Amino acid sequence: MPQGSPLTVPDDGLTTRARRNAPLLAVHTGQGKGKSTAAFGMALRAWNQGFDIAVFQFVKSAKWKVGEETALRELGRAHDERGVGGPVEWHKMGSGWSWTRKAGTEIDHAAAAADGWAEISRRLSEERHEFYVLDEFTYPLKWGWLDVDDVVSTLTARPGTQHVVITGRDAPQALVDAADLVTEMTKVKHPMDVGRKGQKGIEW
Amino acid sequence: MPQGSPLTVPDDGLTTRARRNAPLLAVHTGQGKGKSTAAFGMALRAWNQGFDIAVFQFVKSAKWKVGEETALRELGRAHDERGVGGPVEWHKMGSGWSWTRKAGTEIDHAAAAADGWAEISRRLSEERHEFYVLDEFTYPLKWGWLDVDDVVSTLTARPGTQHVVITGRDAPQALVDAADLVTEMTKVKHPMDVGRKGQKGIEW
Repeated sequence: MPQGSPLTVPDDGLTTRARRNAPLLAVHTGQGKGKSTAAFGMALRAWNQGFDIAVFQFVKSAKWKVGEETALRELGRAHDERGVGGPVEWHKMGSGWSWTRKAGTEIDHAAAAADGWAEISRRLSEERHEFYVLDEFTYPLKWGWLDVDDVVSTLTARPGTQHVVITGRDAPQALVDAADLVTEMTKVKHPMDVGRKGQKGIEW
Repeated sequence: MPQGSPLTVPDDGLTTRARRNAPLLAVHTGQGKGKSTAAFGMALRAWNQGFDIAVFQFVKSAKWKVGEETALRELGRAHDERGVGGPVEWHKMGSGWSWTRKAGTEIDHAAAAADGWAEISRRLSEERHEFYVLDEFTYPLKWGWLDVDDVVSTLTARPGTQHVVITGRDAPQALVDAADLVTEMTKVKHPMDVGRKGQKGIEW
């Protein structure tokens, strides 16, 4: 249950209201489950507040997370058709970013990741969305496909009130330092340890 | 990204298919964010598979998680009206469990929690749902309002294929021992540490 009382009151010249509306940069990292799942759970709240939501999946294969995608697209449809919640966009690297109009043609994953980040940078500068999920985004950082300093400075300098949630293992320290909220998901016990495989409705 | 390869293949006489359909007991615990959020994110996958979903919120106040509730109810509505996904029920202790028909009248939280668990036990024995979220359920266990041994034996003996996800800090060891999947959410950094309060679209 969230605690309503901050530990300290900062001497930053901001009102409580201004602080309450400060844009959040959140990172979900660690070896455990729930990093992406919690990010999509956060998107439910953002949707309910009518925020404009965009998901960018930095994964090679799009076979996972179909459930989350279908559910969030359904919520986007509810917005478009019935005016409840906020609009939802969902972009996947694995099947070609939707704005590049060349679905299925991306062979060079490093180039595709750079392409994705360039688009996100543009959207951040234009304040296109209010809630971004950059799913599995730590991997192109870890593999050197994207420049960590460039990413961190762009995120830090983003204008307006744009919330960004980044997921993935091994978040670089510079990203952790720049983030407002960092949670590490730690595996205590996993069914695969005892030979169970991924399950319908649980893993996808 | 989920790994498809279990570390060991168990000598349990089950086929891969049977193991794949084994009911899951998951626990999200720890001091960090994302325990409930990840559980509701899992519910998106369950919904997409057409599972019958029931959420039981063991919280005193129902003012939090309105976003998740609204979004999941919207998905339940999509099921009911358009036949996509699965049905969704959402029950809150704080405003009176919906089946007890006495909304707002519960003063004794211990009795309300016992009432909630009795109903869940009945539903488990009847195989009423396919995916249960018992949100903040560790607290009535921690506070002695529910008997841990009774809860664990009922969960362990539940018939059929009923997935159960339990959230909350300080999960009792017997529950962790009985669970198939246990993830600990650890706080690395939180905005409240530097005096920021909960935000619209982020915390609720």
